[in-house]
Amino acid sequence: MQKLVLIRHGESAWNLENRFTGWEDVDLSENGYEQAKNAGRILKKNDYNFDVGFTSYLKRSIKTLHLVLEELDHLWIPVEKSWRLNERFYGALQGMNKDDAIAKYGSEQVLKWRRDPNEHPPAVTRDDPRYPGHDLRYNGLTERELPLTENLGETMDRVLPFWNERIVKAMRRNQKVVVVAHGNSLRSLIKYIDHLSDEEVSNLEIPTATPWVYELDEGLNQIRHYYLD
Amino acid sequence: MQKLVLIRHGESAWNLENRFTGWEDVDLSENGYEQAKNAGRILKKNDYNFDVGFTSYLKRSIKTLHLVLEELDHLWIPVEKSWRLNERFYGALQGMNKDDAIAKYGSEQVLKWRRDPNEHPPAVTRDDPRYPGHDLRYNGLTERELPLTENLGETMDRVLPFWNERIVKAMRRNQKVVVVAHGNSLRSLIKYIDHLSDEEVSNLEIPTATPWVYELDEGLNQIRHYYLD
Repeated sequence: MQKLVLIRHGESAWNLENRFTGWEDVDLSENGYEQAKNAGRILKKNDYNFDVGFTSYLKRSIKTLHLVLEELDHLWIPVEKSWRLNERFYGALQGMNKDDAIAKYGSEQVLKWRRDPNEHPPAVTRDDPRYPGHDLRYNGLTERELPLTENLGETMDRVLPFWNERIVKAMRRNQKVVVVAHGNSLRSLIKYIDHLSDEEVSNLEIPTATPWVYELDEGLNQIRHYYLD
Repeated sequence: MQKLVLIRHGESAWNLENRFTGWEDVDLSENGYEQAKNAGRILKKNDYNFDVGFTSYLKRSIKTLHLVLEELDHLWIPVEKSWRLNERFYGALQGMNKDDAIAKYGSEQVLKWRRDPNEHPPAVTRDDPRYPGHDLRYNGLTERELPLTENLGETMDRVLPFWNERIVKAMRRNQKVVVVAHGNSLRSLIKYIDHLSDEEVSNLEIPTATPWVYELDEGLNQIRHYYLD
Protein backbone atom coordinates (compact mmCIF):
# COMPACT_ATOMS: atom_id res chain seq x y z
CA MET A 1 0.00 0.00 0.00
CA GLN A 2 1.24 3.46 -0.93
CA LYS A 3 0.15 6.90 0.18
CA LEU A 4 -0.09 9.95 -2.05
CA VAL A 5 -0.69 13.36 -0.46
CA LEU A 6 -2.45 16.11 -2.41
CA ILE A 7 -2.64 19.65 -1.01
CA ARG A 8 -4.35 22.74 -2.37
CA HIS A 9 -2.25 25.88 -1.72
CA GLY A 10 -3.08 28.14 1.24
CA GLU A 11 -5.44 31.08 0.86
CA SER A 12 -4.18 33.66 -1.64
CA ALA A 13 -4.56 37.43 -1.56
CA TRP A 14 -7.18 37.11 -4.31
CA ASN A 15 -9.15 34.37 -2.56
CA LEU A 16 -9.60 37.11 0.05
CA GLU A 17 -10.51 39.76 -2.55
CA ASN A 18 -12.88 37.30 -4.23
CA ARG A 19 -11.16 37.64 -7.62
CA PHE A 20 -10.59 34.99 -10.29
CA THR A 21 -6.89 34.03 -10.25
CA GLY A 22 -6.13 31.30 -12.81
CA TRP A 23 -2.54 31.74 -13.98
CA GLU A 24 -2.15 35.19 -12.37
CA ASP A 25 0.77 34.75 -9.98
CA VAL A 26 -0.87 35.95 -6.78
CA ASP A 27 0.91 35.57 -3.43
CA LEU A 28 -0.39 33.81 -0.32
CA SER A 29 -2.33 35.94 2.17
CA GLU A 30 -1.04 36.07 5.75
CA ASN A 31 -3.67 33.52 6.63
CA GLY A 32 -2.46 31.41 3.69
CA TYR A 33 1.06 31.33 5.15
CA GLU A 34 -0.31 30.14 8.47
CA GLN A 35 -2.51 27.53 6.78
CA ALA A 36 0.47 26.17 4.86
CA LYS A 37 2.62 25.88 8.00
CA ASN A 38 -0.27 24.23 9.78
CA ALA A 39 -0.59 21.65 6.98
CA GLY A 40 3.08 20.85 7.55
CA ARG A 41 2.57 20.49 11.29
CA ILE A 42 -0.39 18.15 10.74
CA LEU A 43 1.70 15.96 8.44
CA LYS A 44 4.53 15.97 10.97
CA LYS A 45 2.22 15.02 13.83
CA ASN A 46 1.05 12.09 11.70
CA ASP A 47 4.64 11.01 10.94
CA TYR A 48 4.53 11.72 7.22
CA ASN A 49 7.69 12.18 5.22
CA PHE A 50 8.31 12.46 1.49
CA ASP A 51 10.90 11.56 -1.11
CA VAL A 52 9.80 14.10 -3.70
CA GLY A 53 7.45 17.07 -4.07
CA PHE A 54 5.63 18.32 -7.16
CA THR A 55 4.08 21.72 -7.65
CA SER A 56 3.07 24.32 -10.23
CA TYR A 57 4.84 27.40 -11.63
CA LEU A 58 2.74 29.67 -9.39
CA LYS A 59 4.15 31.08 -6.16
CA ARG A 60 1.08 30.41 -4.00
CA SER A 61 1.64 26.68 -4.54
CA ILE A 62 5.45 26.74 -4.54
CA LYS A 63 5.50 28.67 -1.26
CA THR A 64 2.89 26.39 0.29
CA LEU A 65 5.08 23.39 -0.58
CA HIS A 66 8.19 25.10 0.81
CA LEU A 67 6.38 25.94 4.06
CA VAL A 68 5.07 22.38 4.40
CA LEU A 69 8.55 20.94 3.78
CA GLU A 70 10.10 23.36 6.23
CA GLU A 71 7.74 22.23 9.00
CA LEU A 72 8.64 18.62 8.18
CA ASP A 73 12.36 19.49 8.17
CA HIS A 74 12.38 18.20 4.60
CA LEU A 75 13.45 21.25 2.60
CA TRP A 76 16.27 19.15 1.13
CA ILE A 77 14.06 16.74 -0.89
CA PRO A 78 13.86 17.27 -4.65
CA VAL A 79 11.01 19.48 -5.81
CA GLU A 80 9.81 19.52 -9.40
CA LYS A 81 7.72 22.40 -10.74
CA SER A 82 5.58 22.30 -13.84
CA TRP A 83 3.16 24.63 -15.63
CA ARG A 84 1.01 21.52 -16.10
CA LEU A 85 -0.02 21.69 -12.43
CA ASN A 86 -1.04 25.36 -12.73
CA GLU A 87 -4.57 26.44 -11.87
CA ARG A 88 -7.14 26.24 -14.66
CA PHE A 89 -6.57 29.17 -17.04
CA TYR A 90 -9.59 31.39 -16.46
CA GLY A 91 -9.28 33.47 -19.64
CA ALA A 92 -10.65 37.01 -19.55
CA LEU A 93 -12.14 36.42 -16.08
CA GLN A 94 -8.66 36.45 -14.55
CA GLY A 95 -8.30 39.39 -12.18
CA MET A 96 -12.05 40.11 -12.21
CA ASN A 97 -13.97 40.30 -8.96
CA LYS A 98 -16.49 37.45 -8.84
CA ASP A 99 -19.36 39.79 -7.92
CA ASP A 100 -18.47 42.07 -10.85
CA ALA A 101 -18.50 39.02 -13.11
CA ILE A 102 -21.98 38.13 -11.82
CA ALA A 103 -23.19 41.70 -12.38
CA LYS A 104 -21.82 41.62 -15.94
CA TYR A 105 -22.70 38.09 -17.07
CA GLY A 106 -25.39 36.92 -14.62
CA SER A 107 -25.01 34.45 -11.77
CA GLU A 108 -26.17 31.45 -13.79
CA GLN A 109 -23.51 31.96 -16.46
CA VAL A 110 -20.76 32.57 -13.90
CA LEU A 111 -21.77 29.44 -11.98
CA LYS A 112 -21.59 27.47 -15.24
CA TRP A 113 -18.10 28.77 -15.97
CA ARG A 114 -17.03 27.81 -12.49
CA ARG A 115 -18.69 24.45 -12.20
CA ASP A 116 -19.61 22.94 -15.58
CA PRO A 117 -16.51 20.98 -16.71
CA ASN A 118 -17.34 21.69 -20.35
CA GLU A 119 -17.82 25.47 -20.18
CA HIS A 120 -15.17 27.94 -21.35
CA PRO A 121 -14.86 31.39 -19.76
CA PRO A 122 -14.37 34.21 -22.31
CA ALA A 123 -10.92 33.85 -23.95
CA VAL A 124 -8.07 36.33 -23.75
CA THR A 125 -6.54 37.55 -27.00
CA ARG A 126 -2.84 37.13 -27.70
CA ASP A 127 -2.21 40.84 -27.16
CA ASP A 128 -3.79 40.70 -23.72
CA PRO A 129 -1.16 41.11 -20.95
CA ARG A 130 -2.71 38.05 -19.29
CA TYR A 131 -1.83 35.83 -22.26
CA PRO A 132 0.92 33.51 -20.90
CA GLY A 133 2.94 33.87 -24.09
CA HIS A 134 4.18 37.20 -22.67
CA ASP A 135 5.62 35.54 -19.56
CA LEU A 136 9.23 34.32 -19.56
CA ARG A 137 8.39 31.23 -17.53
CA TYR A 138 6.21 29.82 -20.34
CA ASN A 139 8.88 30.27 -23.05
CA GLY A 140 9.20 26.51 -23.43
CA LEU A 141 5.52 26.00 -24.33
CA THR A 142 4.23 25.65 -27.87
CA GLU A 143 1.54 28.03 -29.09
CA ARG A 144 -0.89 25.11 -28.88
CA GLU A 145 -0.02 24.60 -25.20
CA LEU A 146 -0.40 28.29 -24.30
CA PRO A 147 -4.04 28.67 -23.22
CA LEU A 148 -6.46 31.46 -24.16
CA THR A 149 -9.17 29.92 -21.93
CA GLU A 150 -9.71 26.47 -20.42
CA ASN A 151 -12.57 24.30 -19.32
CA LEU A 152 -11.93 21.63 -16.70
CA GLY A 153 -11.49 18.95 -19.37
CA GLU A 154 -8.71 20.94 -21.01
CA THR A 155 -7.06 21.49 -17.66
CA MET A 156 -7.17 17.73 -17.16
CA ASP A 157 -5.69 17.16 -20.64
CA ARG A 158 -2.54 19.05 -19.71
CA VAL A 159 -2.35 17.80 -16.11
CA LEU A 160 -2.50 14.10 -17.06
CA PRO A 161 0.78 13.86 -19.03
CA PHE A 162 2.58 15.19 -15.95
CA TRP A 163 0.65 12.82 -13.70
CA ASN A 164 1.57 9.82 -15.83
CA GLU A 165 5.13 10.75 -16.76
CA ARG A 166 6.35 12.20 -13.46
CA ILE A 167 4.08 11.48 -10.50
CA VAL A 168 3.04 7.91 -11.34
CA LYS A 169 6.64 7.08 -12.30
CA ALA A 170 7.88 8.34 -8.93
CA MET A 171 5.28 6.22 -7.13
CA ARG A 172 6.24 3.16 -9.18
CA ARG A 173 9.78 3.67 -7.82
CA ASN A 174 8.13 3.52 -4.36
CA GLN A 175 8.79 7.17 -3.70
CA LYS A 176 6.55 8.95 -1.22
CA VAL A 177 4.99 11.86 -3.08
CA VAL A 178 3.42 15.17 -2.08
CA VAL A 179 1.69 17.31 -4.72
CA VAL A 180 0.80 20.93 -3.97
CA ALA A 181 -1.41 22.46 -6.63
CA HIS A 182 -4.64 24.38 -7.21
CA GLY A 183 -8.38 23.95 -6.75
CA ASN A 184 -9.04 23.06 -10.37
CA SER A 185 -5.84 21.29 -11.34
CA LEU A 186 -6.46 19.03 -8.34
CA ARG A 187 -10.17 18.62 -9.18
CA SER A 188 -9.23 17.51 -12.69
CA LEU A 189 -6.71 15.05 -11.29
CA ILE A 190 -9.17 13.63 -8.78
CA LYS A 191 -11.82 13.34 -11.49
CA TYR A 192 -9.38 11.11 -13.32
CA ILE A 193 -8.13 9.08 -10.33
CA ASP A 194 -11.61 8.55 -8.88
CA HIS A 195 -13.48 8.19 -12.20
CA LEU A 196 -15.87 10.99 -11.22
CA SER A 197 -18.73 12.00 -13.50
CA ASP A 198 -19.06 15.62 -14.64
CA GLU A 199 -21.76 16.10 -12.03
CA GLU A 200 -19.71 14.56 -9.24
CA VAL A 201 -16.70 16.73 -10.00
CA SER A 202 -18.87 19.85 -10.21
CA ASN A 203 -19.79 19.30 -6.55
CA LEU A 204 -16.23 18.62 -5.43
CA GLU A 205 -14.81 21.41 -3.26
CA ILE A 206 -11.21 21.06 -2.04
CA PRO A 207 -10.36 23.00 1.12
CA THR A 208 -7.15 25.07 1.12
CA ALA A 209 -3.99 23.68 2.73
CA THR A 210 -5.60 20.49 4.02
CA PRO A 211 -3.58 17.32 3.29
CA TRP A 212 -5.69 14.88 1.29
CA VAL A 213 -4.31 11.35 1.56
CA TYR A 214 -4.86 8.70 -1.08
CA GLU A 215 -4.08 5.13 -0.16
CA LEU A 216 -3.30 3.18 -3.32
CA ASP A 217 -2.71 -0.50 -3.97
CA GLU A 218 0.24 -1.85 -5.92
CA GLY A 219 -1.54 -1.21 -9.22
CA LEU A 220 -2.05 2.39 -7.99
CA ASN A 221 -5.79 1.86 -7.66
CA GLN A 222 -7.45 3.77 -4.88
CA ILE A 223 -8.18 1.87 -1.67
CA ARG A 224 -9.50 4.87 0.25
CA HIS A 225 -8.91 8.57 0.76
CA TYR A 226 -9.36 10.98 3.63
CA TYR A 227 -8.37 14.43 4.87
CA LEU A 228 -5.87 14.96 7.65
CA ASP A 229 -6.76 17.80 9.97
CA MET B 1 30.44 35.85 -22.33
CA GLN B 2 28.54 34.11 -19.58
CA LYS B 3 27.87 35.10 -15.99
CA LEU B 4 27.82 32.74 -13.04
CA VAL B 5 26.56 34.00 -9.68
CA LEU B 6 27.84 32.45 -6.43
CA ILE B 7 26.25 33.37 -3.09
CA ARG B 8 27.16 32.31 0.42
CA HIS B 9 24.01 31.78 2.55
CA GLY B 10 22.85 34.53 4.92
CA GLU B 11 23.99 34.62 8.53
CA SER B 12 22.93 31.55 10.50
CA ALA B 13 21.92 31.28 14.13
CA TRP B 14 25.31 29.66 14.85
CA ASN B 15 27.32 32.33 13.01
CA LEU B 16 25.78 34.55 15.68
CA GLU B 17 26.59 32.14 18.50
CA ASN B 18 30.12 31.70 17.13
CA ARG B 19 29.77 27.90 16.85
CA PHE B 20 31.18 25.55 14.21
CA THR B 21 28.31 24.45 11.95
CA GLY B 22 29.55 22.13 9.18
CA TRP B 23 26.73 19.75 8.25
CA GLU B 24 24.60 20.67 11.29
CA ASP B 25 21.35 21.94 9.79
CA VAL B 26 21.16 25.34 11.46
CA ASP B 27 18.54 27.88 10.40
CA LEU B 28 19.12 31.44 9.20
CA SER B 29 19.13 34.15 11.86
CA GLU B 30 16.65 37.01 11.47
CA ASN B 31 19.50 39.07 10.07
CA GLY B 32 20.27 36.17 7.70
CA TYR B 33 16.71 36.33 6.30
CA GLU B 34 17.08 40.05 5.67
CA GLN B 35 20.52 39.57 4.08
CA ALA B 36 19.12 36.94 1.73
CA LYS B 37 16.22 39.14 0.64
CA ASN B 38 18.63 42.00 0.14
CA ALA B 39 20.83 39.84 -2.10
CA GLY B 40 17.72 39.18 -4.22
CA ARG B 41 16.92 42.88 -4.40
CA ILE B 42 20.50 43.70 -5.47
CA LEU B 43 20.31 41.11 -8.26
CA LYS B 44 16.93 42.48 -9.33
CA LYS B 45 18.20 46.07 -9.39
CA ASN B 46 21.03 44.86 -11.65
CA ASP B 47 18.57 43.04 -13.98
CA TYR B 48 19.79 39.53 -13.23
CA ASN B 49 17.65 36.51 -13.93
CA PHE B 50 18.41 32.80 -13.86
CA ASP B 51 17.44 29.59 -15.62
CA VAL B 52 18.46 27.24 -12.83
CA GLY B 53 19.58 27.35 -9.19
CA PHE B 54 21.86 24.95 -7.32
CA THR B 55 22.19 24.61 -3.58
CA SER B 56 23.11 22.23 -0.76
CA TYR B 57 21.03 19.93 1.46
CA LEU B 58 21.21 22.45 4.31
CA LYS B 59 18.32 24.78 5.07
CA ARG B 60 20.41 27.94 5.56
CA SER B 61 21.42 27.71 1.89
CA ILE B 62 18.11 26.39 0.54
CA LYS B 63 16.18 29.17 2.26
CA THR B 64 18.66 31.81 1.09
CA LEU B 65 18.13 30.62 -2.49
CA HIS B 66 14.34 30.62 -2.08
CA LEU B 67 14.41 34.17 -0.66
CA VAL B 68 16.65 35.38 -3.48
CA LEU B 69 14.39 33.78 -6.11
CA GLU B 70 11.29 35.22 -4.48
CA GLU B 71 12.69 38.75 -4.68
CA LEU B 72 13.49 38.11 -8.35
CA ASP B 73 9.98 36.71 -8.93
CA HIS B 74 11.73 33.54 -10.09
CA LEU B 75 10.50 30.93 -7.61
CA TRP B 76 9.34 28.85 -10.60
CA ILE B 77 12.82 28.05 -11.99
CA PRO B 78 14.20 24.55 -11.38
CA VAL B 79 16.33 24.18 -8.25
CA GLU B 80 18.66 21.26 -7.72
CA LYS B 81 19.96 20.39 -4.27
CA SER B 82 22.99 18.25 -3.52
CA TRP B 83 24.91 17.14 -0.43
CA ARG B 84 28.04 17.83 -2.52
CA LEU B 85 27.50 21.58 -2.04
CA ASN B 86 27.22 21.21 1.76
CA GLU B 87 29.55 23.09 4.05
CA ARG B 88 32.86 21.42 4.86
CA PHE B 89 32.23 18.62 7.40
CA TYR B 90 33.86 19.93 10.57
CA GLY B 91 34.03 16.60 12.44
CA ALA B 92 33.94 16.73 16.22
CA LEU B 93 34.15 20.53 16.19
CA GLN B 94 30.57 20.74 14.91
CA GLY B 95 28.38 22.44 17.46
CA MET B 96 31.35 23.63 19.53
CA ASN B 97 31.77 27.31 20.38
CA LYS B 98 34.87 28.64 18.66
CA ASP B 99 36.19 30.20 21.90
CA ASP B 100 35.71 26.89 23.72
CA ALA B 101 37.63 25.16 20.94
CA ILE B 102 40.47 27.69 21.37
CA ALA B 103 40.47 27.13 25.16
CA LYS B 104 40.62 23.36 24.62
CA TYR B 105 43.02 23.06 21.67
CA GLY B 106 44.86 26.40 21.56
CA SER B 107 44.36 29.23 19.08
CA GLU B 108 47.16 28.14 16.76
CA GLN B 109 45.66 24.67 16.27
CA VAL B 110 42.13 26.02 15.78
CA LEU B 111 43.38 28.54 13.23
CA LYS B 112 45.13 25.71 11.38
CA TRP B 113 41.92 23.65 11.31
CA ARG B 114 40.04 26.64 9.96
CA ARG B 115 42.56 27.91 7.45
CA ASP B 116 45.10 25.28 6.43
CA PRO B 117 43.54 23.41 3.47
CA ASN B 118 45.36 20.21 4.47
CA GLU B 119 44.39 20.06 8.17
CA HIS B 120 41.66 17.75 9.50
CA PRO B 121 39.62 18.69 12.57
CA PRO B 122 39.14 15.80 15.04
CA ALA B 123 36.91 13.12 13.44
CA VAL B 124 33.50 12.00 14.69
CA THR B 125 32.98 8.29 15.31
CA ARG B 126 30.18 6.41 13.56
CA ASP B 127 28.16 6.24 16.77
CA ASP B 128 28.29 10.02 17.18
CA PRO B 129 24.87 11.61 16.54
CA ARG B 130 26.64 14.09 14.25
CA TYR B 131 27.76 11.29 11.90
CA PRO B 132 25.70 11.90 8.72
CA GLY B 133 25.01 8.17 8.35
CA HIS B 134 22.25 8.65 10.95
CA ASP B 135 20.45 11.25 8.83
CA LEU B 136 17.75 10.14 6.37
CA ARG B 137 18.81 12.71 3.80
CA TYR B 138 22.21 11.04 3.32
CA ASN B 139 20.77 7.55 2.78
CA GLY B 140 21.94 7.55 -0.83
CA LEU B 141 25.62 8.04 0.07
CA THR B 142 28.16 5.25 0.27
CA GLU B 143 30.11 4.75 3.50
CA ARG B 144 33.13 6.15 1.70
CA GLU B 145 31.21 9.32 0.84
CA LEU B 146 29.92 9.85 4.40
CA PRO B 147 32.52 12.06 6.08
CA LEU B 148 33.97 11.69 9.58
CA THR B 149 36.01 14.89 9.12
CA GLU B 150 37.13 16.92 6.10
CA ASN B 151 39.94 19.20 5.15
CA LEU B 152 39.35 21.74 2.39
CA GLY B 153 40.90 19.45 -0.23
CA GLU B 154 38.41 16.71 0.60
CA THR B 155 35.57 19.19 0.45
CA MET B 156 36.80 20.15 -2.99
CA ASP B 157 37.01 16.50 -4.03
CA ARG B 158 33.27 16.01 -3.46
CA VAL B 159 32.23 19.46 -4.74
CA LEU B 160 33.99 19.10 -8.10
CA PRO B 161 31.99 16.15 -9.52
CA PHE B 162 28.83 18.21 -8.99
CA TRP B 163 30.48 21.28 -10.50
CA ASN B 164 31.51 19.35 -13.60
CA GLU B 165 28.47 17.14 -14.04
CA ARG B 166 25.70 19.61 -13.20
CA ILE B 167 26.81 23.23 -13.05
CA VAL B 168 29.26 23.26 -15.98
CA LYS B 169 26.80 21.24 -18.06
CA ALA B 170 24.04 23.78 -17.39
CA MET B 171 26.37 26.61 -18.43
CA ARG B 172 27.35 24.77 -21.60
CA ARG B 173 23.64 24.73 -22.46
CA ASN B 174 23.82 28.53 -22.04
CA GLN B 175 21.74 28.47 -18.89
CA LYS B 176 22.14 31.32 -16.45
CA VAL B 177 23.15 29.78 -13.14
CA VAL B 178 22.99 30.85 -9.49
CA VAL B 179 24.70 28.73 -6.83
CA VAL B 180 23.93 29.26 -3.14
CA ALA B 181 26.29 27.36 -0.87
CA HIS B 182 28.62 27.70 2.12
CA GLY B 183 31.82 29.49 3.10
CA ASN B 184 34.04 26.46 2.56
CA SER B 185 32.25 24.66 -0.27
CA LEU B 186 32.47 27.97 -2.17
CA ARG B 187 36.12 28.51 -1.17
CA SER B 188 36.99 25.07 -2.49
CA LEU B 189 35.16 25.79 -5.72
CA ILE B 190 36.85 29.16 -6.16
CA LYS B 191 40.26 27.60 -5.42
CA TYR B 192 39.59 25.34 -8.38
CA ILE B 193 38.12 27.94 -10.77
CA ASP B 194 40.76 30.56 -9.97
CA HIS B 195 43.71 28.15 -9.57
CA LEU B 196 44.45 29.55 -6.11
CA SER B 197 47.40 28.29 -4.08
CA ASP B 198 46.84 26.89 -0.58
CA GLU B 199 48.03 30.18 0.84
CA GLU B 200 45.78 32.27 -1.38
CA VAL B 201 42.69 30.25 -0.48
CA SER B 202 43.55 30.41 3.22
CA ASN B 203 43.20 34.20 3.02
CA LEU B 204 39.94 34.10 1.04
CA GLU B 205 36.94 35.28 3.08
CA ILE B 206 33.52 35.21 1.41
CA PRO B 207 30.95 37.62 2.85
CA THR B 208 27.47 36.23 3.57
CA ALA B 209 24.63 36.80 1.09
CA THR B 210 26.65 38.97 -1.30
CA PRO B 211 26.29 37.98 -4.97
CA TRP B 212 29.68 37.17 -6.44
CA VAL B 213 29.64 37.37 -10.22
CA TYR B 214 32.01 35.45 -12.44
CA GLU B 215 32.25 36.48 -16.06
CA LEU B 216 33.43 33.51 -18.11
CA ASP B 217 34.45 33.16 -21.74
CA GLU B 218 33.10 30.50 -24.07
CA GLY B 219 35.61 27.96 -22.75
CA LEU B 220 34.33 28.83 -19.25
CA ASN B 221 37.62 30.49 -18.35
CA GLN B 222 37.37 33.42 -16.01
CA ILE B 223 37.46 36.88 -17.55
CA ARG B 224 36.86 38.76 -14.30
CA HIS B 225 34.87 38.59 -11.08
CA TYR B 226 33.35 41.10 -8.70
CA TYR B 227 30.82 41.48 -5.91
CA LEU B 228 27.46 43.14 -6.39
CA ASP B 229 26.39 45.25 -3.44
